[in-house]
Amino acid sequence: MGSKSDILVVGGGPAGIISAVTARRYYPDKKITLIKSVGNGCIPCGIPYMFSSLKDPDENKLGNGALEKNSIDVFVDEVIEIDRKKKQIITKNGKNYGYEKLILAMGSLPAILPIQGIDKKGVYPIYKDMDYLKGAIADIKKTKNVLVLGGGFIGVEFADEISKINGFNVYLVEIFPQLLANSFDSEFSRIVEEKLKENGVNVLTDTKVEEIIGQDCVKKVRFSNGQELDIDSVILGVGVAPNTKLAVDAGLDLGHGKGIWVDEYMRTIDPNIFAVGDCVCKRDFFTRRSTPVMLASTATAEARVAGANLYKLKIIRENKGTIAVYSTYIDGLMLGSAGLTENSAKKEGFEIVAGVACGVDKHPATLPGASEVKVKLIFSRKSGIILGGQVSGGMPCAELINLIGVAIQKRMSSMELEMLQMATHPFLTSAPTTYPVVLAAQDATGKM
Amino acid sequence: MGSKSDILVVGGGPAGIISAVTARRYYPDKKITLIKSVGNGCIPCGIPYMFSSLKDPDENKLGNGALEKNSIDVFVDEVIEIDRKKKQIITKNGKNYGYEKLILAMGSLPAILPIQGIDKKGVYPIYKDMDYLKGAIADIKKTKNVLVLGGGFIGVEFADEISKINGFNVYLVEIFPQLLANSFDSEFSRIVEEKLKENGVNVLTDTKVEEIIGQDCVKKVRFSNGQELDIDSVILGVGVAPNTKLAVDAGLDLGHGKGIWVDEYMRTIDPNIFAVGDCVCKRDFFTRRSTPVMLASTATAEARVAGANLYKLKIIRENKGTIAVYSTYIDGLMLGSAGLTENSAKKEGFEIVAGVACGVDKHPATLPGASEVKVKLIFSRKSGIILGGQVSGGMPCAELINLIGVAIQKRMSSMELEMLQMATHPFLTSAPTTYPVVLAAQDATGKM
Repeated sequence: MGSKSDILVVGGGPAGIISAVTARRYYPDKKITLIKSVGNGCIPCGIPYMFSSLKDPDENKLGNGALEKNSIDVFVDEVIEIDRKKKQIITKNGKNYGYEKLILAMGSLPAILPIQGIDKKGVYPIYKDMDYLKGAIADIKKTKNVLVLGGGFIGVEFADEISKINGFNVYLVEIFPQLLANSFDSEFSRIVEEKLKENGVNVLTDTKVEEIIGQDCVKKVRFSNGQELDIDSVILGVGVAPNTKLAVDAGLDLGHGKGIWVDEYMRTIDPNIFAVGDCVCKRDFFTRRSTPVMLASTATAEARVAGANLYKLKIIRENKGTIAVYSTYIDGLMLGSAGLTENSAKKEGFEIVAGVACGVDKHPATLPGASEVKVKLIFSRKSGIILGGQVSGGMPCAELINLIGVAIQKRMSSMELEMLQMATHPFLTSAPTTYPVVLAAQDATGKM
Repeated sequence: MGSKSDILVVGGGPAGIISAVTARRYYPDKKITLIKSVGNGCIPCGIPYMFSSLKDPDENKLGNGALEKNSIDVFVDEVIEIDRKKKQIITKNGKNYGYEKLILAMGSLPAILPIQGIDKKGVYPIYKDMDYLKGAIADIKKTKNVLVLGGGFIGVEFADEISKINGFNVYLVEIFPQLLANSFDSEFSRIVEEKLKENGVNVLTDTKVEEIIGQDCVKKVRFSNGQELDIDSVILGVGVAPNTKLAVDAGLDLGHGKGIWVDEYMRTIDPNIFAVGDCVCKRDFFTRRSTPVMLASTATAEARVAGANLYKLKIIRENKGTIAVYSTYIDGLMLGSAGLTENSAKKEGFEIVAGVACGVDKHPATLPGASEVKVKLIFSRKSGIILGGQVSGGMPCAELINLIGVAIQKRMSSMELEMLQMATHPFLTSAPTTYPVVLAAQDATGKM
């Protein structure tokens, strides 16, 4: 039994959905089919908020609405093989689907650390599967002592969310000396750590889990210093790896970064097979090296490129590589990072100068709801080009990190940023005299 | 009686303060003096909020802290003459001050329309003078029927503020058919109008005040359609004009736009006299024509250029002209505009295409505090370069207009914006699949 599509998409996450929808815009007459292995998906970055901020976990559902609206056929099934010669795929349910153009968007899988006892009941990797997650959340809510393993974004957000529910002991465990170590310098990580501690989270940095102890279920966790804690459930937030088995089995190349190799237009070595999103190898904006940064915004941009360019290259692209731009929100506090930190820039060998400015995100500072804002910008010392930025502040700073992201993508100089034209308003921004992006640039220029 | 400074600044607003402070950074050994005519200044954009949002109007004071910290001598006096030959200025109090380099930062004066009765008691132009404004606010608070004349930013913000106080009848009168007509297309102006009406403001567009009636004090206002209203006080918010008398009397040139003519480095025709801020002629970013746009952010950028470049040109600058970037906030609703509107772009003769996207400023949309967000982007049809943008949304969109402003200043194309890398987060932004700047760019590209 088989069917034939013109365009076949494997994967139902943001990359898969946007590929299919974009293909529909550009190829209105093609038959488009999307196959996904998970019936009920989730909005990936909303997963931590299914715990308490959302009234009902189902509010975080990633539905089929956009696909249905664009006349894309959707099947829930697992693709187990790509037959490149016959130009068809084969599924676990024994079906096959032919294609003219195939788009692989299999996403990533949670990394499972080789810790003794990690397979015990009560240890929850984060799969983007609504039914699985609803079960996990319900189970965890019945317990008392929760350990979140990994102090990256997902770990920090889970710890914050669970701390909002009364009656839990929450432990956030990070092997490095600081939280969010890939994205922030220590003075920003400290702001996050203090906020979490204020809210009752037990933050354990510089701490390694050695063993998860218990018969079938988690009972205790032992650290490398020998200390043991009573723990009922463990949430694993230690990163993800590209899901590439299908591509490797089909003889497609991987890039240096373990993801599927693609050219500028998301084409694999097979001109009829495209790949997009977390399953694809990413390059770094600054050095062009492979980088493990996986972001929904990168995935959707790649999906737009692939979807438009399936038959002829219509959208001309300069894939600048990922600048790694992130933001998070912890109980009234916004934090964002774009590009290189002072730390990572030095590690990459850049000669840098940093500029810092602190202020208040409204003006005058006595307006209700005003928060402190802090901006740090990293520049190449000789060329003066911006390499990165970090922001902390209140809700009005939400998009400030994306402004810095645009400046990075356009390789602006510190002098250009000093002369920036921006709207300022008492309720929405710092004062024009103290706009922190301008002052941080000025601070850096002064040191060049 | 006289004294001699190296650097002399005339004017105590943001442009004057930042000129002096920047000069101090670059010329640590110079004697710097600032003369201002108003003893107690105000933060200009905070003026409407002295009515109700700030507990005490004094919270909006523009103090001398930054000047004192930078060892800048401050005198309150009015400069009445510049003697360019003797390189000195003369004040109303009969003093004279010599200079090597003079920076003019006299700002602007409120426009007074030639309406019969406009000089009556109870009519309040907005002078940036704390003592005057405190008196005006106290007087207005004793009345009941307030008419705000002018539906630009200052008028809209005053009307909104006064509507927060119980017991007032507030009328907002605009001669054009829409509010904020210079900065927004009608679909955005309508959002503002509806919000104000919801909050009890009587919005009268397409309405011209013919006469202000009363013996000494305002009693009534008569419109051109003959209708009369009982009015106790009138707030004038109909724009400002560059304050240039001192410069004209000294034989300095004006530009086309009535402000003082300056070169790329804020030098007037006299190489020892610089001018910055609202008193200076502004050029438009898109056409290089003179434009009456006066913004504190432009003023402070000009002040940074002048302050750094007084003796030798240290900071190399490309004065791109003003992009006219504004934002405002009305009772939970943020609105911003950067560059040309659809309307103004057409008037200027551009062949354009507009892209629009609507969504929600958090994701999923059911998160507490989520607001609708709407983005409109204007592009040059053939070249694909961005010409302008408008945004409405909640607090998280505060800096989104400045992101669009950076895109304009870097002349980004719709295709670049489609491929934008941005941080997305449930509490801080729209979803990556529906990020409205990207979708609006995509919408526009599709129409090119």
